[in-house]
Amino acid sequence: MHITDIIRKKRDGGKLSAEEIRYFVEAYTKGDIPDYQMSALLMAICIKGMDAEETAELTFAIRDSGDRVDLSAIEGMKVDKHSTGGVGDKTTLVVVPIVAACGLKVAKMSGRGLGHTGGTIDKLESISGFRTTLGADEFFRIVNTTGAAVIGQSGNLAPADKKLYALRDVTGTVENHSLIVSSIMGKKLASGADGIVLDVKVGSGSFNKTPEAARKLAEAMVAIGKAAGKPTAALLTDMDVPLGRAIGNAIEVKEAVETLRGKGEPDLVALCTELAALMLHIGGKGAVDECRTMAKTALENGTAFRALLDMVRAQGGDTECLTDLSRLPSAAISVEVAAPADGYIVAMDAAGYGRASLVLGAGRERKEDAVDHAAGIYVSKKTGEWVNKGDTIAVLYTNKGSAVAEAREIVLASTVLGSERPSPAPTVQGVVL
Amino acid sequence: MHITDIIRKKRDGGKLSAEEIRYFVEAYTKGDIPDYQMSALLMAICIKGMDAEETAELTFAIRDSGDRVDLSAIEGMKVDKHSTGGVGDKTTLVVVPIVAACGLKVAKMSGRGLGHTGGTIDKLESISGFRTTLGADEFFRIVNTTGAAVIGQSGNLAPADKKLYALRDVTGTVENHSLIVSSIMGKKLASGADGIVLDVKVGSGSFNKTPEAARKLAEAMVAIGKAAGKPTAALLTDMDVPLGRAIGNAIEVKEAVETLRGKGEPDLVALCTELAALMLHIGGKGAVDECRTMAKTALENGTAFRALLDMVRAQGGDTECLTDLSRLPSAAISVEVAAPADGYIVAMDAAGYGRASLVLGAGRERKEDAVDHAAGIYVSKKTGEWVNKGDTIAVLYTNKGSAVAEAREIVLASTVLGSERPSPAPTVQGVVL
Repeated sequence: MHITDIIRKKRDGGKLSAEEIRYFVEAYTKGDIPDYQMSALLMAICIKGMDAEETAELTFAIRDSGDRVDLSAIEGMKVDKHSTGGVGDKTTLVVVPIVAACGLKVAKMSGRGLGHTGGTIDKLESISGFRTTLGADEFFRIVNTTGAAVIGQSGNLAPADKKLYALRDVTGTVENHSLIVSSIMGKKLASGADGIVLDVKVGSGSFNKTPEAARKLAEAMVAIGKAAGKPTAALLTDMDVPLGRAIGNAIEVKEAVETLRGKGEPDLVALCTELAALMLHIGGKGAVDECRTMAKTALENGTAFRALLDMVRAQGGDTECLTDLSRLPSAAISVEVAAPADGYIVAMDAAGYGRASLVLGAGRERKEDAVDHAAGIYVSKKTGEWVNKGDTIAVLYTNKGSAVAEAREIVLASTVLGSERPSPAPTVQGVVL
Repeated sequence: MHITDIIRKKRDGGKLSAEEIRYFVEAYTKGDIPDYQMSALLMAICIKGMDAEETAELTFAIRDSGDRVDLSAIEGMKVDKHSTGGVGDKTTLVVVPIVAACGLKVAKMSGRGLGHTGGTIDKLESISGFRTTLGADEFFRIVNTTGAAVIGQSGNLAPADKKLYALRDVTGTVENHSLIVSSIMGKKLASGADGIVLDVKVGSGSFNKTPEAARKLAEAMVAIGKAAGKPTAALLTDMDVPLGRAIGNAIEVKEAVETLRGKGEPDLVALCTELAALMLHIGGKGAVDECRTMAKTALENGTAFRALLDMVRAQGGDTECLTDLSRLPSAAISVEVAAPADGYIVAMDAAGYGRASLVLGAGRERKEDAVDHAAGIYVSKKTGEWVNKGDTIAVLYTNKGSAVAEAREIVLASTVLGSERPSPAPTVQGVVL
């Protein structure tokens, strides 16, 4: 099998066979195909596309390119959750305790990733003492005992995806349906869960700019999950507006705790409830409606918050940080951004708020960068709210005084004022079961 | 300017600006853009295409990527000739002496290249003593004195093309109109001639499989040559059948000499006459018809052959090799290929004959390979001729006994016998002026 024949076949719009797809994924992972040939193939795939069968084969080849996690030491069904990435997305911190409180085990491996804030792992590390690296035995024991644990990814999981993603990032080949689907699902299928719930974002803060693109992505991922023998479902959710009001690391932990204590923002509560309901449903706890009621109850009666405290304690974290939120890391500098005029907030560029958060130090641009747990943004006003000139629309938190001017400018440029009251999109826009 | 923005623009079907094209050609030549980004861009260009303006800009950027030859030390107008490559194409060996005999100076730089036979330079080196490396002063002096010289390419001519071509070759991005046009014309425009005549092949032995593709290529190249201020013309010529009857190095020199001595094959004579006529016309020697008459006369009255002898002598070659052709290198082994049945030769795969010649040792697969000057094929029967079973259709010449079986098989597979007499295509099929 010759890689140049495979490249030419896709260039001319041909359909690649399972053998051809397996061959190039394996050979590229081993280093037998150089980057310059793979990037030509990726570009041909980007432009000519892959059909559902090719996309599934690519997903399975990525899944099989490294280790596959074995979670069989954990009793019962394990359901994983994945978000395509949004600004202010702290749902894992809320959903995992809800689901655990309802009796479903959650053994979650999360990434750090690149972006406007740290990943779930970085957020949890703003809790003093919290250990995100556990041996397999301890990980399994904690999940079996407390119902949930969240650790960093370890092992050689889907190495083909790591290598392919790094190459796509620098060759203009990120934005392709099949490459996105296979990247997400290849990793998820290797990570050992029995079922998968996907949160597919759509809007200004997502790579899905239209509901149609988001639905197509969700449907393809659900179909592939099922084809791999795993119950899979997806929510289509709004990302035109940051989720909740906190963007950062410690500040998102704080908002998650407030949500678990019954003082959550409506959009965040709605999304977390639906995600938890779907996970419980997939995990065999009943019909979606029943599961939604269970999730709401766990959120309202405090059992979900206790599940978070149990998990944090088991992983070595100081639970007093959660009962007294002033003990979480706080920034040296806080600056209010004032509204430049009267008006309704008619639109927000969620991605812009994300960039501002990155500038303030909450995220990382390169793998080796450290995140500032205390940095971030509190979004005081969101789309649909009225502001008078001079009202605070956001509060910036940082330890880098030099970053404030740029972050303020980005926030102002990402907030559109107008005289007509807009109707913000609902947070949960659809479900693919 | 960011290469990833340029890649994405072309991926999405956008038109690249002159600045963007200059940027990526220069940066890639300098090594500032890695192969894996350039191959993604080449694939996007392959699939999305470039318009005439982009193609011209790419050509000029390639031309300007290295040295530009200065031929001003040679008196009068200098016209160059380029063939897109064919099997048995020894036209340079015939056309250069004709044109010189008619009073137009030819200062030709030729390549070795890869392929079924050596390049013009390899062919000339089968003449004992012939020097293909000359200093600039000697090169100019010989052209000024004898009217013609042919040397190997030296200097840093169009380095962008060398690098791009090597990458295209291994990434499935050779077959694209704009990339082919810019590769050929970028080099030609850097090589210092005042005018250019192109021989664009079409047929089984060419990368142009259809007359339409060949005409489109010819028209684009002529337009770009003119846009660069150089009179340019192109012939569209048949390459379904090897040109003349000799394929190799010494054997092609022999056929060229026979042609210059009035015993040429009709197809070779017709093509050389037309090419010489166009070069003379471009060089200001008169109307095409007048120039054709001049070329025919030079071929028939022996002045063209004397011009070849003068040039070979001036470049240190033993002219007795040309007056006594038995002194050219000859192979240890010669094997006749017999017709397997009675019939007309209804079709030939010219590329197949080329591969057989390569197998026999006449060409090179890698830059560092040596060619065997004595190896090659004499094509005894061509499309349209009748053979009886057992008649010789070709004679194989080689010094590698182990190559004979494979070469014979390829020749037989490349020769189609049938009962209906075919009508071979004319050698010269069109002209673009």
